Amino acid sequence: MRILGIDPGLATIGFGVVEKTNYDFVAVDYGIISTPKDDSFPERLMTIYRAVGSLIDNFKPDAIAIEELFFLKNITTGIPVSHARGVILLACYQKMHNIYEYTPMQIKLALTGTGSADKHQMQYMTKSILNLSDIPRPDDAADALAVAICHGQTNQQLVDNLIK
Amino acid sequence: MRILGIDPGLATIGFGVVEKTNYDFVAVDYGIISTPKDDSFPERLMTIYRAVGSLIDNFKPDAIAIEELFFLKNITTGIPVSHARGVILLACYQKMHNIYEYTPMQIKLALTGTGSADKHQMQYMTKSILNLSDIPRPDDAADALAVAICHGQTNQQLVDNLIK
Repeated sequence: MRILGIDPGLATIGFGVVEKTNYDFVAVDYGIISTPKDDSFPERLMTIYRAVGSLIDNFKPDAIAIEELFFLKNITTGIPVSHARGVILLACYQKMHNIYEYTPMQIKLALTGTGSADKHQMQYMTKSILNLSDIPRPDDAADALAVAICHGQTNQQLVDNLIK
Repeated sequence: MRILGIDPGLATIGFGVVEKTNYDFVAVDYGIISTPKDDSFPERLMTIYRAVGSLIDNFKPDAIAIEELFFLKNITTGIPVSHARGVILLACYQKMHNIYEYTPMQIKLALTGTGSADKHQMQYMTKSILNLSDIPRPDDAADALAVAICHGQTNQQLVDNLIK
């Protein structure tokens, strides 16, 4: 099963493609989509929309896992990133309907066994599970790989996490 | 000049099309786009995306005016509505680049001369400016007509309010 993980954002969107065979995970590709700050807001949304569509066309995932947003402490960032996440969900849904969302706590729990893991622990586990020689960079790409792994490890929860 | 006004939302999106000739405004059409609560979240975003695209195709506006969101007091509502507004901006930008945004206070000021006008005053002024026999219904459609009128009345601010 091939899973595309997405870490949503406006300036930087992380993506990570993993292939799961039985209990093994392999990183197919990972990286980021960037939108220039000098571009207008709608133009940045368009860039994200097109780039996400291209990712799905190129990697043909069986499922897409996307991180949920928690902005209770920072609404100023939350509003533009939510605009971007809406466009990401649209781009995904136009290509396929197997879209799942996970909270940061669910992702931490799936990878480390504890919902309070820090960034260093998460990146170490991502590297370890994918048998990479180094921590994947940049951070947003590592986060996207983590949500993809989370989806692969929590198949039993698929129905619960399918976006309703 | 034909202006499409949009009052963003997830369950209900208001739209209002006005034609401005010199200092006169005429309502061409107004109404709402609705998304069923039983549909999945991405499906509702897709419905909004398609409906907004159809509005622009049908009415061929010269400019689009869209209300800004203020959710400092209600982030729970703010996140899903921001997702929807991102999709609305994308749908608009794919069709045309003359997109302007106005805060609720700017809209109130343009229609009534005071930034603290209440809903009743706003609806009365919208009806009056458009020479309608009744207050336009539902409320979201009236709000969308108001933002369209606001754009027509504040041409001198066009550059400032063009979404950057």
